[in-house]
Order: sequence, then structure tokens, then C-alpha cells
Amino acid sequence: MLLGAAPLRAEDGYDLWLRYRLLAPEQAKFYKNRATELIAGSSTPTQSVTRGELLRGLQGLLGRDVPLSDSVTRDNAIIVGTPRSSALIAQLHLDTQHLGHDGYVIRNVVVDGHAATAIVAQEDMGALYGAFHFLRLLETGQAIDHLDLHETPRVKLRVLNHWDYLNGQVERGYAGASIWDWWKLPDWRAPRYTDYARANASIGINGTVLDNVNAGATILTSTYLQKVAALADVFRPYGIRVYLSIRFSSPIEIGGLKTADPLDPQVQAWWQAKADEIYKLIPDFGGFLVKANSEGQPGPEDYQRSHADGANMLANALAPHGGIVMWRAFVYSASNPEDRAKQAYDEFKPLDGRFRANVLVQVKNGPVDFQPREPFHPLFGAMPKTPLMTEFEITKEYLGFATHLVYLGPLFEEVLSADTMAHGKGSMVAKVIDGSLDGHALTGMAGVANIGTDRDWCGSDFNQANWYVFGRLAWNPSLSSRAIAEEWVRMTFSNDQAFVKPVVEMMMGSREAAVDYMTPLGLLHLMGPGHHYGPAPWDASESSADWRPVYYHRANRQGIGFDRSRSGSDAVDQYAAPLAAQFNDLKQTPEQYLLYFHHIGWDYRMRSGHTLWYELVAHYTQGVDDVKRMRQTWLGLHGYIDEQRYEQTAAFLTIQEKEAQWWRDASIGYFQSISGLPLPPAYASPPQSLQYYESLTFPYAPGFSSW
Amino acid sequence: MLLGAAPLRAEDGYDLWLRYRLLAPEQAKFYKNRATELIAGSSTPTQSVTRGELLRGLQGLLGRDVPLSDSVTRDNAIIVGTPRSSALIAQLHLDTQHLGHDGYVIRNVVVDGHAATAIVAQEDMGALYGAFHFLRLLETGQAIDHLDLHETPRVKLRVLNHWDYLNGQVERGYAGASIWDWWKLPDWRAPRYTDYARANASIGINGTVLDNVNAGATILTSTYLQKVAALADVFRPYGIRVYLSIRFSSPIEIGGLKTADPLDPQVQAWWQAKADEIYKLIPDFGGFLVKANSEGQPGPEDYQRSHADGANMLANALAPHGGIVMWRAFVYSASNPEDRAKQAYDEFKPLDGRFRANVLVQVKNGPVDFQPREPFHPLFGAMPKTPLMTEFEITKEYLGFATHLVYLGPLFEEVLSADTMAHGKGSMVAKVIDGSLDGHALTGMAGVANIGTDRDWCGSDFNQANWYVFGRLAWNPSLSSRAIAEEWVRMTFSNDQAFVKPVVEMMMGSREAAVDYMTPLGLLHLMGPGHHYGPAPWDASESSADWRPVYYHRANRQGIGFDRSRSGSDAVDQYAAPLAAQFNDLKQTPEQYLLYFHHIGWDYRMRSGHTLWYELVAHYTQGVDDVKRMRQTWLGLHGYIDEQRYEQTAAFLTIQEKEAQWWRDASIGYFQSISGLPLPPAYASPPQSLQYYESLTFPYAPGFSSW
Repeated sequence: MLLGAAPLRAEDGYDLWLRYRLLAPEQAKFYKNRATELIAGSSTPTQSVTRGELLRGLQGLLGRDVPLSDSVTRDNAIIVGTPRSSALIAQLHLDTQHLGHDGYVIRNVVVDGHAATAIVAQEDMGALYGAFHFLRLLETGQAIDHLDLHETPRVKLRVLNHWDYLNGQVERGYAGASIWDWWKLPDWRAPRYTDYARANASIGINGTVLDNVNAGATILTSTYLQKVAALADVFRPYGIRVYLSIRFSSPIEIGGLKTADPLDPQVQAWWQAKADEIYKLIPDFGGFLVKANSEGQPGPEDYQRSHADGANMLANALAPHGGIVMWRAFVYSASNPEDRAKQAYDEFKPLDGRFRANVLVQVKNGPVDFQPREPFHPLFGAMPKTPLMTEFEITKEYLGFATHLVYLGPLFEEVLSADTMAHGKGSMVAKVIDGSLDGHALTGMAGVANIGTDRDWCGSDFNQANWYVFGRLAWNPSLSSRAIAEEWVRMTFSNDQAFVKPVVEMMMGSREAAVDYMTPLGLLHLMGPGHHYGPAPWDASESSADWRPVYYHRANRQGIGFDRSRSGSDAVDQYAAPLAAQFNDLKQTPEQYLLYFHHIGWDYRMRSGHTLWYELVAHYTQGVDDVKRMRQTWLGLHGYIDEQRYEQTAAFLTIQEKEAQWWRDASIGYFQSISGLPLPPAYASPPQSLQYYESLTFPYAPGFSSW
Repeated sequence: MLLGAAPLRAEDGYDLWLRYRLLAPEQAKFYKNRATELIAGSSTPTQSVTRGELLRGLQGLLGRDVPLSDSVTRDNAIIVGTPRSSALIAQLHLDTQHLGHDGYVIRNVVVDGHAATAIVAQEDMGALYGAFHFLRLLETGQAIDHLDLHETPRVKLRVLNHWDYLNGQVERGYAGASIWDWWKLPDWRAPRYTDYARANASIGINGTVLDNVNAGATILTSTYLQKVAALADVFRPYGIRVYLSIRFSSPIEIGGLKTADPLDPQVQAWWQAKADEIYKLIPDFGGFLVKANSEGQPGPEDYQRSHADGANMLANALAPHGGIVMWRAFVYSASNPEDRAKQAYDEFKPLDGRFRANVLVQVKNGPVDFQPREPFHPLFGAMPKTPLMTEFEITKEYLGFATHLVYLGPLFEEVLSADTMAHGKGSMVAKVIDGSLDGHALTGMAGVANIGTDRDWCGSDFNQANWYVFGRLAWNPSLSSRAIAEEWVRMTFSNDQAFVKPVVEMMMGSREAAVDYMTPLGLLHLMGPGHHYGPAPWDASESSADWRPVYYHRANRQGIGFDRSRSGSDAVDQYAAPLAAQFNDLKQTPEQYLLYFHHIGWDYRMRSGHTLWYELVAHYTQGVDDVKRMRQTWLGLHGYIDEQRYEQTAAFLTIQEKEAQWWRDASIGYFQSISGLPLPPAYASPPQSLQYYESLTFPYAPGFSSW
């Protein structure tokens, strides 16, 4: 059969890191000899998809069908399964008890006198995860001759949050519309739902919240629950549970009640009945995610009840079915004159110990809002009796939307490896998240998805890396973001070291570049109002003071920065004592957080010996230079990968370079108008007037509208 | 090279009718012998894409590369080009003068002693159209041994209207978001834009209006014109010009003027300068489409000027550059107590002869609004001094959205073949459109696109047929919709007669089925308010009387129908005298238009001998039965095509059957509540109460929101 029979399609990113393209000849030959036949069951849906994925992956990577077999008939077979499902696996007598629901072992073994590679788990899901791991070894060109891998996830709930509305819009989405085609569900189950599940399972994600945290009540009507159930059916074989964001006042809006007071027996009964209805349709339903009394959402405080009262009422309704509540700590109030960065801590810390066992409190990685850089959230380590999830933002709301190349691995890693000092040195955020610090078994990590209907899912090829790294870190928060980047580059693009090395370098530097050209030295929240696109440090147009850039940078003729030391808002004392002391001391504060914790003079001497003003200009300029270098790097890589993805990345880097320059010029222009200082020698002045930068408007910026 | 090297992707509809899949072996062999080499120039962009398309198409269909050559070196070469671009073509001495810009000849010839197939045109574009035609012959399995085809388009402007907003929403769009990624333009030119151009060129479409007729002023800012220019650059080699819908009041909104009065010299100067600016960026810019003084849009009547004053002012600005104005006749006013169906005629007929030479008046196919069936618009034939375009709606706003299978060919054909009698018998709408009736050289046909970001472009595979048939009929309004359906089925699915025949039958019957289950016997406009989904004959909630279903059906205890006879609104007299007499006479009026022209008693005797009430119920029921049969037909075709497209169509037919039943039951339930009559024997009562049907709401219906 000629290849021409099926016109070759360009690589368009749809396949993500599961491309399974033919390996280089010598590599393919090597693996072919080690994958002579496949023994895999198909007596459950998960077993079937495991077998199917291995067949598909091996066929693609090796360029030939690997025969299925019921027994080991030759050397170098691949065996996958559990002791319960496979007599062959059982006779290996591997200890699988400790692997739990999701863990697996990959080991070279001898079966019936033949060498074989065994992918062994206690449960079907572990075997599927192991199968994806095995394929990853091949995709990334790893040795597979002496395998003895043991993997169990360190975090129990590895969950995507979709900020998708039922009308198809995605809040802060830069990759098209919602992939949930609610209108055609439940009758039409688009094939894309299956590919979504495959991609998530391949990186260990096991839960998805389908709707926006600014939820409506409609999602809980029986019409919509049937649609949700159809998606749950598609996801089930891949070990992915569905969760829903719920509107706290749903008992009023669709239940006909007069109140949503969590202590009202009718309200409690309504939620219990609703939970019963849901679990009848979806026996493995995950639970609820709740944004309450935050940014206008209803909540228990409307009835003078606490967040714990609200969460526990829902938790009671879900508990009999095994469901959980993820209750968001992202609360602040414009009417509260207190430093916004302090409010979540102030409100939630006193509730520690008051939540039911099936409640997790979901805390953003930093105390403000997913900024390019923030210190870790002070609640981490501060609520030892409560399971805390972290919430990362995978979608680049504050990082240039779809077109900027910003690999978030270093950001996630920076947060997870931050030491809370809660129990002294070594009390890393990762240990709060994985439950080991305070002995919690219920653990979780959430990421706000960057997924939409764009063909490449994420709005750019490199954005896929952010989905990928989130999943891998949720499985194991101690992994290195660099190692994950390399894995991803190899699977997504090429195993050629001449390509892999510079691209990994470019990715690893990309987040620091964005911090530099947007908000260096601890600045944050300086973006355009509402849509959050582009620089607007001058902006004071937002209705709430704490939505305004000027609230955050507090620049004046004398200096710049938000004083959160003890002489200021005293946010520093929300951290453990040693950290509080460090952050309170201007000289000890890491310079990357300097203006987050301190208001200091323009002529303050930095460690470099330069003034703050000099360093600020230098950092902004550095960010632009870094992007220029990224673009040069990419231009030097033409020919290593397919044209379509090469060209798109090149075009996006051109946009990023222009916009980095714009961020730098507009920011420097504005801060110069405040400081009144001349630019340091050798630094170029902004080419346009400040008025010009202030005049720009973006009426159709994606990801934002007044729904 | 093994097929396994590139994982075979499912057929997902992206390739449309340009799939170029390997033909059946005997067919491929046959054509291979008749396509031994290709002689095609590449000295212009259009020549390059022509050559590229032939190489791609032949390679896919025949399963092997066809060698390029500069001269004819063997029998059975393919030669494509123009006498100017190719000495080989020139020496054929074919008469190409009459072919104009777009026409072509395909003929078997002898060159240098070798048999060859020549695709010859006067201009490059004709050669590209000819190449697509030649590929279509192969895709549909036609004989190519004795070719002598002459083709020139009968209509000059063959234009898609995109009702796309700059925020990415598509009004009445059921195939995802806008395919124009304005945010990333002009820097990123998505490959999809090229495939859009290819698809359109393949069916002869040569113009596209990028933005919604409810236009904003932003599209005319220099930022957006640069984005438009980037799209124009992509489309240019494919002979597709861009047009823009403009907001009449733009001189106020972005020009800083105090008025948009078309007789104001400053306003005229502003439009002239704007036209100059546009043509500097886009030398072949097509022109403007204008919705003025209609449904809240601004227009010349705001200044007590006529539609002609407004259109001519814009026409004067565009004329020096060769641009044209398409001025919509879709006007009506809720404050006008006159029958809405009469208003466009009343307003535009007196303006005949008052428009500049580069203005076309764009008239919807019927006098109300794209309903499943309406009589043709009375303006056709009534404005002999004015070029009239027809506006068809390809997107299925009133026909079940994406999921209902309704092939629009018969609807378009019914309109085009309708005889206006303007100059006596034989004065078909098609002759108005193609200019032959009154001797117009400037002619056009517009279709409201059904295209969006859905992978399959149109929301379903069968919706692609509606894009296809629009293009083919715009090229030649006298083509048979059945022949076009067959062509499309062969290219899109299969040449197997056992598949082609039943599917064409199903398509050809589908529109009548929809008329029957939605609005039989001349009823129309009975759909849900605002979103236009589902039945709501009871609805009187709309703010404007003439948006309400009850305005249109006028059912009461005595009877049903809108009296447009001389004893009623006298809309009949907007038609030519013989037609007016016919429509005025209840007994002569075709029953398919009965309730459009007459209000008659429930017990009126129809030609069948049955009462009107009986026939109404019978038609509604027939529509459901037809859909059941369509679904059965499809279920019998499993295995003829790929699984993915088979399954989706099967799922959509399931939805359609449910919804046809719903339309029938809700409509009968409602009309029974008015007529008070029992259902005829053997006809099932609606399974739900009328209250139930009235209670249904659809807050997230696609294609509609309050922007």
C-alpha cells in the first residue's frame, strides 16, 4: 500500500506528546527486538484501552504491528496487567499491594524461560499508567534492558479545573472555545473527549472539573447532569472522575427554596437529594469545587455562616457516596481595607480543624492571583489540620496569553520547593501538598486548564508543555521541571540532541524572561484592566482599589513597592517566624520579592551596587534581550521539525518579542514619569510617549468579556 | 516506508470534498494511464497553487506522484495554463477570448504527436477552476477520454457572508467560533485560511465578507485593516476577494465627525479617504456590504436620506478603485403596522434606477427571513434597472441548527427556478440573478456561511453539502440540486452506487421533511424566540409584534393563516399580475404556500379531499416519518464509509428524529388547543401536555446571545 493513499497531514499539534511517530531506524530496530509480542487483557474497559494504547503506540513508534498473544511464546514479549487479571502476572509473584490504585512496576523478568518486560499493577488503572510510562521510555529513547521502575503517585487528586461556561466561552481561555459541546451532549460524544482522556491519563491526571468556578445553577439540572454523565462515561476507562463547580445558591435558583443557608434543614436535604441524583447517574462522581463569597459569588457568609459551615454541609451530602469538596480559599473583598494579599489567610487560618474529613481547601500558589512571580501562599504550612490543595494556573492569563512562550515548570517548581519552615527547615510546600508534612491521606493538586477547541488544544505547541508539566508534578511534586521539559520536547518534537538541548534551555529561561519584561523585582499585577493583556501600570480605572495596578506598585516620587513589613501591612507575619523575620528585613529579602514586601527609594543600593532604578530598567531590558535570544535560538533550529509547527512558533516568538519590548517600554516610560529620573546610560528610551501607551485599547482581547 | 509510520487519522471532515483518497484499484489504474505527466507553470502565485493542487490531488487519488515536465514527452499528459503563460497551450490555438477571467476549457488534444488532456483558460484563475473541475471528474469517477468541456460562470460575484463578530462569536453559527483569529492576525496566518481558500476556489466562490452585517466601526481602524490585508494576501492566489460589512455611522465612531449624513461633504471625504487607505493595503479589495436602517443599525434614513443616497455615497468612494457596494434590502420596522413581508418591496421598488452602477441590492430569497419555505421575494423581477443579488442562508438558523440533516439544494433550486413572470413566462429568478433578464453585467449571489472552528468546518458532514451546493449554484444557477448532491456525495464519501443512490435520495427529501415537521402548508416563523431553536407557535414574548410566531400563523378558533390576498394585506399584488391573480385566488394558490397567502377555516377542503386540519396533522406526522426513514436508510449503510463520520451522522439523525417528533407534537398540541378539534383517527396525540412544551427553555442555545 502506498503512503500516498492517505495524504499526509501536517503536524498540527492535535496529537500532543502522544504522537507515536516512527522512531529513527536504529532506534526502532532496537526496540522492535524488545517488543516481539504483547500479552494484555481486555476484560475491563480500562484493560481494553491499555491494550489499545500499547498497540497504537508500538505500531506508530516501531512501524509495524506487534502481535497479540495469550502466552509468552518467544523472547522479549511485553506483558501488562494485574495479578488478578492475568495468571502470567500472578506467577511473577511481585509485591503489588503497596502500589495502591494507581501505582505500577515495570521490570525485566523471565517468564516460561523467555525474557520479557512486565508492566504490573495492583489495579487496572496502575497498569494503564504503566503502559503510558513504558511508551514514554520509547518515545524519549531510553534504555529498556534493565528496568526496575516503581511508581506511585504522591498526590491523590490530580485535577484540571476548566473555567468553561455553558455557553461555550472559556474565562481566561486563549485556545478557542470550550471543548465541551454541551448542546450536542449527551447524544453526541465527540471523539475528542476520548483523546482528552487519553492525554490526561498519560500524565496521571485523574479528575476534571468541567465548569467555571463562577458557576451557574443550570449545571445541576437533570438535563445537564445527563450531559455530564455522558462525559463521565467516556472518561471512566481512563480513570478520570468528573467534578462540578457548583453555585452555592442553587437551592434557590433551581430548587425553589427561599434560602441557601447551609444550616437550614431544607437546604441540607436539597443538597443530599441532589447528591443522590448525581450518583445515580455517575456512581464515581468526584465531588464539588466551590468558589463562595468571592468576587460576587454567593456563599455561606450571606447567611452569617462560615466557609466551614458551607463546605461541611456539601461534604455531608457527598460523604455517603465517597465524594469530596474542594473549597477555594481565594477570597478577598474590596470593602476590606486590609492588604488583599492577607485576606485569605486571615479568613481561613482560624477555620483550621473545623472542616469535615472529605473537604480540601484549595489555595492558589501565591497570595495575590497567579502572577508571574509571587511568594508562596502563607496558608501553606499554616493549616496543619486541613488538607490543602494548591491551585496553579496553567492558562497564561498573566503571561502573554497564547502567543508568549513561557514554560511554567520553573514557576511550579519554585512554589513546590519553597520551604514554609512550618515545622522547621525542610517543610516544603510540596510536603504540604502531598500530605507528608502533617499526615494527610486526602491530597490534591489543581491546575486551571489551558485547553480549548483550537486544533492544538492549548493555543500553541509550547503551551502543551504547561499542561504536561502540571500533570507530571501532580503525580510527583518533587520532579525536576527541567527533566520534565526534556521529556516533553523529545515526545513532542524530536529526540535529536541538537534540538533538545537548546529548546530545553529556552524553555527553562522563558519564565524568568517574562517576569523581567513584565514585573521584575517583586512587582506584580501591572497588567491591563479586565482583560489582563499588556502593560498598564498607570491604570486606576478598575472599580475595586485592589484590582488597580497603582494599588500594587505604589510608586511615587520617592520610591516604589508595597510595604508588607511590620511597618506596613505586616503580611510578613503570616509566614513562619524565620521567614517572617527574613521578609521583614529589607536586606535579607530575596531581591526577586523586594518590591512585594518593601517600599523603597529609587536610589536604594541593590546587591549589584546599582540603584533600584538602574536595576529596574536593567531587568526590563534583560527580559526583552532574553526573548530576542529565544527567537534567535528558534531561528537556528529550522529543519529539525515539521514546517507547520516550526513556522507557528517562529511567528509567535515574533509577537512575543514585539510585546516584550512594549511591556518594557511602556513600564519604563511610566515609572520614569513617576521617578523623574533619567534612564541609565546605554539604555534606550521608549520610542513612544507615555500617552501613546496609555491610549491603547483592546476591545476584543480573548478570554474576557462581561458575561 | 510503512503505513504505520504516520498513524492513520480518522476521517474527521476537515478535508471536505477535497479528500483525494486513493480511488478503487481499477479506477486508479484507469486514470493513471491518462495522467502520465503534468505540465503546469508556476510563474504566478495562482499558477503555483494550481500546479500544487493538481500534484496533491493526483498523488492522493492515484496513489503515486505524477511527474512534472516542461514538455510533452509521452502520451496522456495533463497540460494546464493559458496561452500567455504557456507556449504549449498557445500552440493549441484554442479560442479563449470568450472565457473571460474565470472560464476554462478541458479538452483532449494532441500535442507534439502525443495525446494529452488540456486545461486551458484565458487567465490564471480560469486554469485553477479548470484544475479543480478536472480533479472532480476523477473524484466522481467520470470518463475523461472524450472531454470537451467549456465552463464560464453565469454570476460574477459569488460571495460568502460571514456573520462573524470580532470577539469570535458567530451569529447564527452552529460550527464553533469564527475561523478568523483576529487576535493573532496579522502576524500569524493560520494554515486553515489557506484551506478555506482552496475549498472556496474549488466550487467557484470568489468573494468573502469577513464580518457580521451588524458591523462595528472597529473593523475599519488601521489596526484591523492590517489584519484584513493579511487574510486578503492568503486568499489572493485563489481568486478570492475580501469585502467588509461596514457600520454606516463609522465616520462618527472612529472618524470624530458629528454626523454620518451621506450628503455631508465631510462624511463623503471621510469615506473616500478610508477607501484610499483600504486600497493601499488591499489593491483588489472587493467592497462593502451594508445593513442600514434595519433591526437597529444606523443608516441614511437617520438623516432623512434614502437607501440610494447612502449606497451611492459609498459607491462613489469605492468606484475609483473598482470596488462595489452590496446594499441589503432586508428592512422592516416594528413601528410600521404594514405586513412585514411587504416592507422591503415598498421601500426599495421606488428606488429602482437611482443606484450608481457599482451598487447591487442584496435581497433575501424570500420576503420574510430564510424560513424553511417562503415564496420567492417579490423584488425579484420588480427592479429591472438595478442589479439584484440574492442572499441565501447556508447556516441552518431555522432548520435545526447543526444536527439536522437538511440539504438546502432543493430550497435554493426552488427559488432560482421560480418564475417571476416579470417579462412573461420564463422570467426565472435565476435570470434576474445572472443578469440575463434585464441585461446586467454586474451580478452576484451571496450565502450566509455555515463555517466555524469545528474540525469539520460546518458542524456536521452533511452541512458541508450546503456550502458546496451554494458555490456550485452561484457558478451556474441552472444546475440541478440533485446532480450537485450526487457529485458531493461521491467526493465526500464514496463512489459506491449502493451508497450514493440512497444517500442522494435521503438528501433530496430532507428539506421537504423539515418543512413538514416544522412549518407545513405555508406556515413559517414558528420557532423559539431569539435563539430560533425548536417549536414555539404559542410565543408572543418578543418585543416586536413581527418577531412573534402568533403574528405569522394567526390561528384562532375559526382557522389559520396570514391573509395576504387583496382582502388582507394585499402582498399578492407585489408579484407580477399573473402571479398576483394566482396567489390571490385561494383555489389556485399552491398548497405549499396556502397559509402564507390565506387565512382559512380548519375544515377547508384541501385538494386531497381532507380538511385543512387533517392535512396539517398529516404533514407534521409525515415529516417525522420521513426522518425516521432517513435514519433507517443511514443505519443500513454501515460499513460503506469510515466509522467516525458514520457514527456522527447516526447520532445526529437520532437527535433529528427526537426533535422532529418534538416539533410535530408541540405544534399539533398547540394548534389543537386553538382549533379545539380532535386529532384525525390513527394520528397519535402528543405525549406531553402543551404546558410542558411551553415550559422548555434553552438558555445556552448556540448562535445567539445578547452581544
